[in-house]
Order: sequence, then C-alpha cells, then structure tokens
Amino acid sequence: MADISLKPVGRVESPLTDPAEAPKQGFEGAPDAWIVLDPTVLDALEGVKPGDRIIVLTWLDRARRDTLRVHPRDDRRNPMRGVFSTRSSDRPNPIGLHEVEVLAIEGERVQVRHLEAVDGTPILDLKPVI
Amino acid sequence: MADISLKPVGRVESPLTDPAEAPKQGFEGAPDAWIVLDPTVLDALEGVKPGDRIIVLTWLDRARRDTLRVHPRDDRRNPMRGVFSTRSSDRPNPIGLHEVEVLAIEGERVQVRHLEAVDGTPILDLKPVI
Repeated sequence: MADISLKPVGRVESPLTDPAEAPKQGFEGAPDAWIVLDPTVLDALEGVKPGDRIIVLTWLDRARRDTLRVHPRDDRRNPMRGVFSTRSSDRPNPIGLHEVEVLAIEGERVQVRHLEAVDGTPILDLKPVI
Repeated sequence: MADISLKPVGRVESPLTDPAEAPKQGFEGAPDAWIVLDPTVLDALEGVKPGDRIIVLTWLDRARRDTLRVHPRDDRRNPMRGVFSTRSSDRPNPIGLHEVEVLAIEGERVQVRHLEAVDGTPILDLKPVI
C-alpha cells in the first residue's frame, strides 16, 4: 500500500520534557500545555473557544513503529497483547489521541488542560468532541 | 516542519462506495463493514474481541487538504467556520476517527458496526476506547 505523507500543523509546548516522566493518560496528572499552530493554518482555528472539549491528534515521534505486541502499561506482570488492543505509543502508526479542554486562545497559541504529550511533539489535527 | 510518512495497516471493505452517499457520522445510518488488515500486522490484533468498542483511524484519501474553513455539514446556511472546530473530512491532515463496535474477527478481517468510511479507505490504526 502506498505511503501517506503528513505535514504537522503545530507543536506541543509543555513543561513535560522527559518521556519517562509522562503520564500514560492525561487524567493521570499531566500538566497544562500549549498547542502552537503554524501561522499558515490559523484560519482553521476559527470557532474553537475556551471551554470547548477537543481531541488533539499528535505524532508520537519517539515511539517504536516495529512493535506489534506489548506488556500493557509497560508492566511485565501484564501478559503481552497486540498493540491494537492497547493505548501503547509503540505501534505501526504512532498517532496519539488526547481529549482535552481548551483553557485559552492567544493568536495561534491554544492552551489546554492535562496534555500527556512531551514538549516538541508534532500536532497533526484538532477535532471537536462530539 | 519535516513531513511524516505513514503506512496504512489495512483497508475498509464496505458496501458504501459513493462518498456523496456516506453519512456524516456512523450513527447516522452507516452500514456494517470489514476492516481488512495487512497480514504483516496481524499480531497487533491479539486481544481485540467481539463486543469491544474501538476507535478506527482512517486516512480520508478523497478529502481536500487545502481547506481551512467550511460550512459545517456542507450546508451553506451554516456560517463558515475553521475546520478544527468541525468534523469536516476536508482539513490539512484528513484523519478520520470512527468509534465502532467489533462484531466478528476472522483472521485478519474485523467486522465492525456502522462505519461511515467508503470502500477502500486506508486504515492507519485501531485503538481501544478508554
């Protein structure tokens, strides 16, 4: 099957810099963070406002793409399972889904609550929760 | 920002062939469909079973990637809005999110309920709903 080429629309700006310290899920204590969009896509943000719940799609660029089975939550006591049955970041196409609340918008910068992605993570898309 | 290269892990097999007839959302009358995985990623499916709710990530290969604002639901009576505030398939990185129930698994074929993606749509990832 032909490869697909994506272009990031922005980057995460976060106090979280060490992937080993990142929580597995946002509700497990992730810090607030900024989504910094590329100015060329600013028009796409029109209509997003503080209080909205959105899904941030990220590219988990430090993940392993050749991993098909894992111990869930990196705990060797959990029996190995296929990555499609887990939220492991190691998977053939490591796209992260993060449901977060918008706290503030300043130009092309969007502040969100509890984002478990590390500083510099590329952003692929934002969608409203429906 | 550097481009990212994705490799589809499978394709949708569906009676839905005309994008104009596809419902906007699965709960709006989409048919049951099959996800046909590439045999090389079959190990990643271990642990997924009938009755599970999963999120299917697709590549909406017929979408326009240069669209930043749309009339929501293609209805010109709706004022234009940025695509990040809508579920429009036209957007810079047209990745579709579809939450569906697994009905059956036969080898590398996974039957799911109410999938609003047309036949042949590339699949990027499967994740459990959490």
